[in-house]
Amino acid sequence: MSAPIYNRVALIGLGLIASSMAHAMRADGLAGEIVGHAKSDETRKVALQIGICDRVYATAAEAVQGADLVVLAVPVGAMAAIAAEIGPHLAPGCTVTDVGSVKQAVIAAVAPFIPQGVHFIPGHPMAGTEYSGPRAGFATLYKNRWWLLTPDEATDAEALARLRSLLQAMGAKVDTMDAAHHDLVLAVVSHTPHLIAYTMVGVADHLAQVSNSEVIQYSATGFRDFTRIAASDPTMWRDVFLTNKEAVLDILGRFTEELFVLQRAIRMGDGDQLFDYFTRTRAIRRGIIEAGQDTSAPDFGRVPAVAVDAKA
Amino acid sequence: MSAPIYNRVALIGLGLIASSMAHAMRADGLAGEIVGHAKSDETRKVALQIGICDRVYATAAEAVQGADLVVLAVPVGAMAAIAAEIGPHLAPGCTVTDVGSVKQAVIAAVAPFIPQGVHFIPGHPMAGTEYSGPRAGFATLYKNRWWLLTPDEATDAEALARLRSLLQAMGAKVDTMDAAHHDLVLAVVSHTPHLIAYTMVGVADHLAQVSNSEVIQYSATGFRDFTRIAASDPTMWRDVFLTNKEAVLDILGRFTEELFVLQRAIRMGDGDQLFDYFTRTRAIRRGIIEAGQDTSAPDFGRVPAVAVDAKA
Repeated sequence: MSAPIYNRVALIGLGLIASSMAHAMRADGLAGEIVGHAKSDETRKVALQIGICDRVYATAAEAVQGADLVVLAVPVGAMAAIAAEIGPHLAPGCTVTDVGSVKQAVIAAVAPFIPQGVHFIPGHPMAGTEYSGPRAGFATLYKNRWWLLTPDEATDAEALARLRSLLQAMGAKVDTMDAAHHDLVLAVVSHTPHLIAYTMVGVADHLAQVSNSEVIQYSATGFRDFTRIAASDPTMWRDVFLTNKEAVLDILGRFTEELFVLQRAIRMGDGDQLFDYFTRTRAIRRGIIEAGQDTSAPDFGRVPAVAVDAKA
Repeated sequence: MSAPIYNRVALIGLGLIASSMAHAMRADGLAGEIVGHAKSDETRKVALQIGICDRVYATAAEAVQGADLVVLAVPVGAMAAIAAEIGPHLAPGCTVTDVGSVKQAVIAAVAPFIPQGVHFIPGHPMAGTEYSGPRAGFATLYKNRWWLLTPDEATDAEALARLRSLLQAMGAKVDTMDAAHHDLVLAVVSHTPHLIAYTMVGVADHLAQVSNSEVIQYSATGFRDFTRIAASDPTMWRDVFLTNKEAVLDILGRFTEELFVLQRAIRMGDGDQLFDYFTRTRAIRRGIIEAGQDTSAPDFGRVPAVAVDAKA
């Protein structure tokens, strides 16, 4: 066990992200105690049952009292109301961070309510699964995953170092960047791909000539990877698109232009153009494997969904 | 070991698909002997070295002589020339199948060259990895994967049953459908998703404000799944889009319409529309897991790319 890095951590919102943080902090003694708040009675009950919180509170205002770290783990659209509620109850010197997938909108929503002497350090753990809720959390969710922080020039260096040490102790790789740049990078690597995946799954669902059972049965070659993405939490993603609107619309515009170029090549039968394009995209994939962000094992290193005995 | 189902199997083209068939047939004694043809000297040499062929031939015409099963495992664009070459050399009563990802174009290219008394049964194994070449093959590639056959009303029932028994013995699940319907289903579950993935990877590559190293570093949330798809064999995919043009353009048109609806909802800030859309797509994902086409383990059941020791 390490020495606790914070004496009392208050988790506001008790879904996959907060629950995984709690498991990770418990596993390594990183927090003296962990308290929590969730809107729903049921979620608070589950949090006590599975032991991710020592105490739970029906209001966020109560939960943050006396905490030296407050983690805002609610959907981006709920951040402003929570910040307004907790602002007057934050302990002097405490650190407030969040786990939202967009940063400029969260800063605009939260920063005005942070009192003098409290450190607000926006954050974004780039980890998750297609499951949500307190029972979906597990201690190793952040191991070897990036956790981006977007401090500004006024951020207290000591508070930043302490938060960084907590995240690293949970297994995360921590990087800092400007909030606006964060939102553009995420629009490219995450937000727009999600919207596209949602759309493709929707098209399949609407197509009368192809039954849903056929789509499901023959999904292994391509479509399956889209559906995993498209199964993510609807509330979180609604808020992402509403709050990172400009960057997503920019990338979507570029995507559509580029798609039309390829669509035209198909219509005109321009095989050389297609071949050249498909060859270039291979290089990026190689880079991802070399950067250790995915396995090079065939088929993603998946274990076959239904095991079939190998015969001699 | 089972009794051989065919006495001599001729593999025309020795890439991932043919090589995996050879490994699977060898593992279970399904073929008396396996001969092969590949255009390149190097590929033929490798095929002998790794033992997937008993003999190799510099021409397809030589390779098919005396075979009771001929497997056309070349890119779809190369099928017509190969069929013209082998037609006069096919043994009476033999079965010719192919492994192309589109079926109507292959039938149009191959059927005219199939002599009376030879059975042409088009096929499509829905399995693969992002790797290609003879060394990429492995015996379990087809285990629990679909292998679609598109016979017509003139297809010999006995020849069909024999081919089916071979594919099932290699672990595949076999289904039959009409060739036109096959091409539409595949446009939805595979071809269009691939084109979209290629496009998104291309957009990321072109974006000057975001470096490629950032795209690679932060790819874990969404983009990574696109790059795997986009790393597939460029020749194969060029031919797919050129030969399944109509169905792909149809699905692409629907996709763009639908994407514009979501794009407008983002621009107008219509959160309810986004939320409803994202909620509906979750159901399809659940269906895929229930159909055993993917694992329900978080993050696809991936093993972390770089192992990090769990601390006590």
